[in-house]
Amino acid sequence: MSEQRSQSPMIIDPPERLLMGPGPSNPDPVVLKAMASNMVGHLDPYFLDVMDDTMRMLRAVFRTENHHTIPMSGTGTSGLETIMLNLIEPGDDVVVAVIGYFGQRLVEMATRAGANVRVLESSFGEIVEPARFAAELERKPAKLVALVHAETSTGAEQPVAEVAQIARDAGALIAVDCVTSLGGMPFEVDAWGIDAAGSCSQKCLGAPPGLGPVTFGPRAIEAVANRKVQTSTWYMDLNLLFQYWGDAGGAKQRAFHHTAPVSSIYAFHEALRLALDEGMESRWDRHREAHEIFVEGLQRLGLSLFTPESHRLPMLNVINIPEGVDDAAVRGALLDRGIEISGGFGPLKGKTWRVGLMGNNANTERIERLLGALGEALS
Amino acid sequence: MSEQRSQSPMIIDPPERLLMGPGPSNPDPVVLKAMASNMVGHLDPYFLDVMDDTMRMLRAVFRTENHHTIPMSGTGTSGLETIMLNLIEPGDDVVVAVIGYFGQRLVEMATRAGANVRVLESSFGEIVEPARFAAELERKPAKLVALVHAETSTGAEQPVAEVAQIARDAGALIAVDCVTSLGGMPFEVDAWGIDAAGSCSQKCLGAPPGLGPVTFGPRAIEAVANRKVQTSTWYMDLNLLFQYWGDAGGAKQRAFHHTAPVSSIYAFHEALRLALDEGMESRWDRHREAHEIFVEGLQRLGLSLFTPESHRLPMLNVINIPEGVDDAAVRGALLDRGIEISGGFGPLKGKTWRVGLMGNNANTERIERLLGALGEALS
Repeated sequence: MSEQRSQSPMIIDPPERLLMGPGPSNPDPVVLKAMASNMVGHLDPYFLDVMDDTMRMLRAVFRTENHHTIPMSGTGTSGLETIMLNLIEPGDDVVVAVIGYFGQRLVEMATRAGANVRVLESSFGEIVEPARFAAELERKPAKLVALVHAETSTGAEQPVAEVAQIARDAGALIAVDCVTSLGGMPFEVDAWGIDAAGSCSQKCLGAPPGLGPVTFGPRAIEAVANRKVQTSTWYMDLNLLFQYWGDAGGAKQRAFHHTAPVSSIYAFHEALRLALDEGMESRWDRHREAHEIFVEGLQRLGLSLFTPESHRLPMLNVINIPEGVDDAAVRGALLDRGIEISGGFGPLKGKTWRVGLMGNNANTERIERLLGALGEALS
Repeated sequence: MSEQRSQSPMIIDPPERLLMGPGPSNPDPVVLKAMASNMVGHLDPYFLDVMDDTMRMLRAVFRTENHHTIPMSGTGTSGLETIMLNLIEPGDDVVVAVIGYFGQRLVEMATRAGANVRVLESSFGEIVEPARFAAELERKPAKLVALVHAETSTGAEQPVAEVAQIARDAGALIAVDCVTSLGGMPFEVDAWGIDAAGSCSQKCLGAPPGLGPVTFGPRAIEAVANRKVQTSTWYMDLNLLFQYWGDAGGAKQRAFHHTAPVSSIYAFHEALRLALDEGMESRWDRHREAHEIFVEGLQRLGLSLFTPESHRLPMLNVINIPEGVDDAAVRGALLDRGIEISGGFGPLKGKTWRVGLMGNNANTERIERLLGALGEALS
């Protein structure tokens, strides 16, 4: 088979999947259709309007008035690295909370950006209490505090609003990974005083993967403007990017920086439009209700959640695999029925499953389909 | 209008455009259709097959057996920065040829990567003769020589094969920006001895913009393995990327690094398949013939090309704007008829137009349509 394919390539015709893993979720048909729309140039007047519209809607989703709010031309990971490589200069002190894989990733990015990183760690499933941030910043100031809002590897929510207040009180910038949370639970850039945040396109916003939505507030922009050393990245340099996306003064320079991923931005635009048509509060509620329906169903199946209820995420559910159950066999049986769920991450591999209820998949009918299939796979 | 839109977003329904600028070109309908295919997960068995198939076909397009041949999850620019940030360590000596904007961009990326950059410059429209590389490397060795194959700002082709030989003879690595050339004219990674090359998805390969195809040969991989200092980027770190794309030993680790842009890779897969169905030599010939037809048409209109014939590109034509002709008015008149061409770049702005004949647009009927419209706009 693979030998044969090495001569003759496959023709793209992917199977239908119900994507109940940690993302991508299933995009709305309207969003996928936009992906195949007429191509226009990245400086076409039509596309410049799409860009403006996208920025405006993305601000509403991030709950911010920050001008510098764009989808980076890369995946969510590129958005987070954009934050780190622009806000951090070599030698800067940075405090990062680590409660799982994605916190650790922020540590690695900050280290590569040249920071002296101090890590506040908690065991998997737990969170870092706000008081620990306060104590650490009291002990020694930092330029930047970074943490993950919704830790996808453990299903835990960190108390971002409180940490942001503590960081600001201590004179530090606050940057947040909201890859999994944005669009599926309250996340308030301006009300919480967040200086920089990065998410993705393919989870609760329900677009295809490939874009990294980011927002930068005035204090972050000032830090970038005051850099003594140029950032090591040209592709992700904010100063260059905003020559294309327009500056905060309202001037539209629209100078070429790179060729924007036109089709992906079409789709992202439509996903944002659908999210705002629904309303952010309604969308958050829908994700919360989907979670409650799912948890009830898990209880009926005799399954329990790994993450303590006090800081459990709605859109990413980490389930304990019962004693004697074969992780891979169950996931394989689900995939045979067209349903994707995900295995555990790092130390939780083989011990947990991760089930995402994101975007259009935070939906009773789809949840019942998954629960039915899971019940049969376990019986 | 823009006030109204600030209340109510547009619905994506882009106009039909004939894209005769420097890219994107018009993707084949098969390619656009693939963009809207069923979403699957980035670790789905189906998608892993798509990845293998894509790598295999991309090797054939690059004319290489390099295992490390993938589309980066970012635009062509991200692919070039991947090359620079992985091959260069702070303090390395690098020689870069600059004959226009995109050569200058390589200088900036190399500088940000920490290199001591020595620039070999020629005036716009000209090239850097191979003997100058030999003399410079004789004067002082370098770790890396970098140049643009097809300089999109001036329409000039640099003699990459000869420069690659000179670089290797001097013990330097050779990296090439083939963003505009790949798929539209001969570009031979293995036969020419190129260590690293980066292109884009949206020009002569005819996929939507958003991916940065790159290839790395054994000497480049060895340089990455021998780094003393970790690269500053986590997103573009080759060592991490190949945990997802599989290593050269044939082991498929398939460890999560970032969520691949599934839809964009579907489309890119289909674009590669169409290119290889046509055959690379046939495709190069088609671009060459399209150029000749276009040049004849320009002569009928009394228009001349800026770039000397000795090193003129087939797929990117830089046209002298006749005395007294209004650059913007002509481009506006063409756009009113649904045709995009591009203005000049940098010092050539207002003095030249740039016309791309790329991918499916290297086509007699489309060229005649452009020539007809251009003739009317000029009359």
